[in-house]
Amino acid sequence: MTARTLQGFMELLPEEQIVMERMKSVIAHTYELFGFAPLDTPVLELADVLLSKSGGDTEKQIYEFKKGDTNLAMRFDLTVPLAKYVALYHNNLTFPFKRYQIGKVYRGERPQKGRFREFYQCDIDIIDRDELNIVYDAEVLAVIYTIFNKLNLPAFKIYINNRKLLSGFLEGLNIADKTVDVLRLVDKIKKIPEEAFLAELNDMGLPEEKNKKLLDFIKIKGINNEIIAKLENFEVENDNYKTGLDELKVVINQATNLGINPTNIQIDLSITRGLDYYTGTVYETFFDEYPQFGSVCSGGRYDNLSSVFMDKKFPGVGISIGLTRLFDQLRDNGLLNISGPTPNKVLVITQSPDFADKAIQLAGELRRKDVCADVMLRQCKFKKKMEYANKIKIPYLVIIGEEEANNNTFTLKNMQTGEQQTLALAELINVVK
Amino acid sequence: MTARTLQGFMELLPEEQIVMERMKSVIAHTYELFGFAPLDTPVLELADVLLSKSGGDTEKQIYEFKKGDTNLAMRFDLTVPLAKYVALYHNNLTFPFKRYQIGKVYRGERPQKGRFREFYQCDIDIIDRDELNIVYDAEVLAVIYTIFNKLNLPAFKIYINNRKLLSGFLEGLNIADKTVDVLRLVDKIKKIPEEAFLAELNDMGLPEEKNKKLLDFIKIKGINNEIIAKLENFEVENDNYKTGLDELKVVINQATNLGINPTNIQIDLSITRGLDYYTGTVYETFFDEYPQFGSVCSGGRYDNLSSVFMDKKFPGVGISIGLTRLFDQLRDNGLLNISGPTPNKVLVITQSPDFADKAIQLAGELRRKDVCADVMLRQCKFKKKMEYANKIKIPYLVIIGEEEANNNTFTLKNMQTGEQQTLALAELINVVK
Repeated sequence: MTARTLQGFMELLPEEQIVMERMKSVIAHTYELFGFAPLDTPVLELADVLLSKSGGDTEKQIYEFKKGDTNLAMRFDLTVPLAKYVALYHNNLTFPFKRYQIGKVYRGERPQKGRFREFYQCDIDIIDRDELNIVYDAEVLAVIYTIFNKLNLPAFKIYINNRKLLSGFLEGLNIADKTVDVLRLVDKIKKIPEEAFLAELNDMGLPEEKNKKLLDFIKIKGINNEIIAKLENFEVENDNYKTGLDELKVVINQATNLGINPTNIQIDLSITRGLDYYTGTVYETFFDEYPQFGSVCSGGRYDNLSSVFMDKKFPGVGISIGLTRLFDQLRDNGLLNISGPTPNKVLVITQSPDFADKAIQLAGELRRKDVCADVMLRQCKFKKKMEYANKIKIPYLVIIGEEEANNNTFTLKNMQTGEQQTLALAELINVVK
Repeated sequence: MTARTLQGFMELLPEEQIVMERMKSVIAHTYELFGFAPLDTPVLELADVLLSKSGGDTEKQIYEFKKGDTNLAMRFDLTVPLAKYVALYHNNLTFPFKRYQIGKVYRGERPQKGRFREFYQCDIDIIDRDELNIVYDAEVLAVIYTIFNKLNLPAFKIYINNRKLLSGFLEGLNIADKTVDVLRLVDKIKKIPEEAFLAELNDMGLPEEKNKKLLDFIKIKGINNEIIAKLENFEVENDNYKTGLDELKVVINQATNLGINPTNIQIDLSITRGLDYYTGTVYETFFDEYPQFGSVCSGGRYDNLSSVFMDKKFPGVGISIGLTRLFDQLRDNGLLNISGPTPNKVLVITQSPDFADKAIQLAGELRRKDVCADVMLRQCKFKKKMEYANKIKIPYLVIIGEEEANNNTFTLKNMQTGEQQTLALAELINVVK
């Protein structure tokens, strides 16, 4: 039997895994800092529950199968399971309900570089009954801003928009019936020339005058306050548009209030998140120097999370980090510090097996003081033990030989500086702590 | 569409999930304290890779399906994926290789109370090339001992044995060909009367004199030193037996050396771990007052981890906590402290929406000081906000009203004691930190 791992399934070496775990733990801790509670839902769900809302491409990618008489499917995101969860347990939840979930999801895509069939999503959502305060849309920005800073990621911008602006704008032009087609086209604006954009609008049967106005709208650029001023002066008589603009202003102002550096937030009227179920604020996040990574963190505001399962209205706002892909891209571009220290802090080695007991006792003592410690117990030459210590990049090495055993001391070597001291137990613990 | 979760799949409410996460994090941190590195392998594997070693009951329980032309299976434990991992990457690993993995595994068992189809296993294994020092078998004990103490679990004992003792004993009696049958019978010794045990041995065609000797052997009881003394004086001329006894002595001695309270370790010669692939030390863990929970943590020593995949020899020792079932049993017996505090420490509320900005700024400031903080942004009456604070069991409440806004102060209420103080920002941070 040949050992093999499926294509499209990430499997890391220990030194990489340590970095991945560190990233996950920064993300989880920051989510908790902002008041989100952990959630864990099954990887497997009833197929009809999971597929209640999807269709088209998603459905084709799903890992679906039968066990006995039951149709099962592996989750392809964490949003549908959340919708199910809220529908099932809303009577036991306290609203506003802020939950985070870090878990693997599955999509049977054609395997290609940078695409994974099993990948981590790190989601937050804030859900309330009937109505959800717009300030939460700014809080979501602050969470992502804090995480990206803590992870020491490359320079980034979170692009934001409000879908009510464009849909209200189209309503104001009396072309609301073209919203779906226009949204699809706007999504492509960065990739096609202006003429092609106008030509496509023409093909939809829209009059030239309206097309020009639409293009002017999409092309509004500047720093956030300039864009907001332009949007305020743009001639649109539509309530949806006005609500969208008001919401956008609150989000931008509260982002500053929350301590976000304004240069990390950019209004971009061409961000629409495709045909998604978002209804207000939408987010995408790009690295300034690595646009080819695509959006590494996206999300938005929706009117009704659990509409498939129930009549009650649960509006929410959420965002998701695609961690597996982000990790992969950072690694490929040398942007991960994968040579960092292991969680291990101290390795104890002996110059002869006679001192093994002392080494084992010391490791026990260190662990009780919450210092990560390991003993090299393989019976091999001292030189081999030193090689092992170098290989695992241990910060501190403790050596126990004849002299140390007789004097009840320990030789502590700082492996970064090479400095060596002979210490009693209490001193040693002080130094490594 | 009715929202439903599959039977046999655990789904927790937030306050329970917080406890579960706390348990996972104590387990992971303790594993790291002892020098284990994290590992994460796919939930899905090629069916032939995963099923290479199993058979019988396991095979029937597996979630297996076809996607395109590929036969896939969901992992049913973390050991086979580890065997695959070591076979694939051994050239890139540093030995002794100490890894931990906390992950979900899947078994399509008939659903019944206390049985889960998706459950967490929390595994550690130490693997070396060719030979693995027996002291590691004691280290595994120390890890579990530390975790169970940190988790404040009920009084427990880790029962240990060495399979070489029984197999060597049977060899010494010249009945090694009956080992499989005898092991199966010994596994039942606690459930059947002595006569039935002897009768079954009789049925295997074993002479009465040998049967009596076998029963005497299994029945050896006492504190560990007494058992070891009896085993040393037992008349068995067999190398395997001697090796097993030597190994057991080392493990018991080193357990003490590592700081384990001797009353938490009990040699039990009837522990065999069925027909598993273990070859030396075996472990099972029971709560003294809750034997009906069954073994909550089991494992052992094996000679060759990856034999299905390669010729090279990788002996190891490992143990696994079945976390989902443990959590479920503790909860059902009121042994979980699920009313403990949320990770959230401070909730900020205002007496009027006018002070929302100040509340949002304060939350940002607290989070930058690494204090978990939340603002209640729902627009509702002050009384409703107080109800919310009580419901989520927040330790500290900050109230901002007219007076606080004018004086740039905050009213901090300790929700446990009811004590209330009016403080400036720096003082407030000092108190809650």
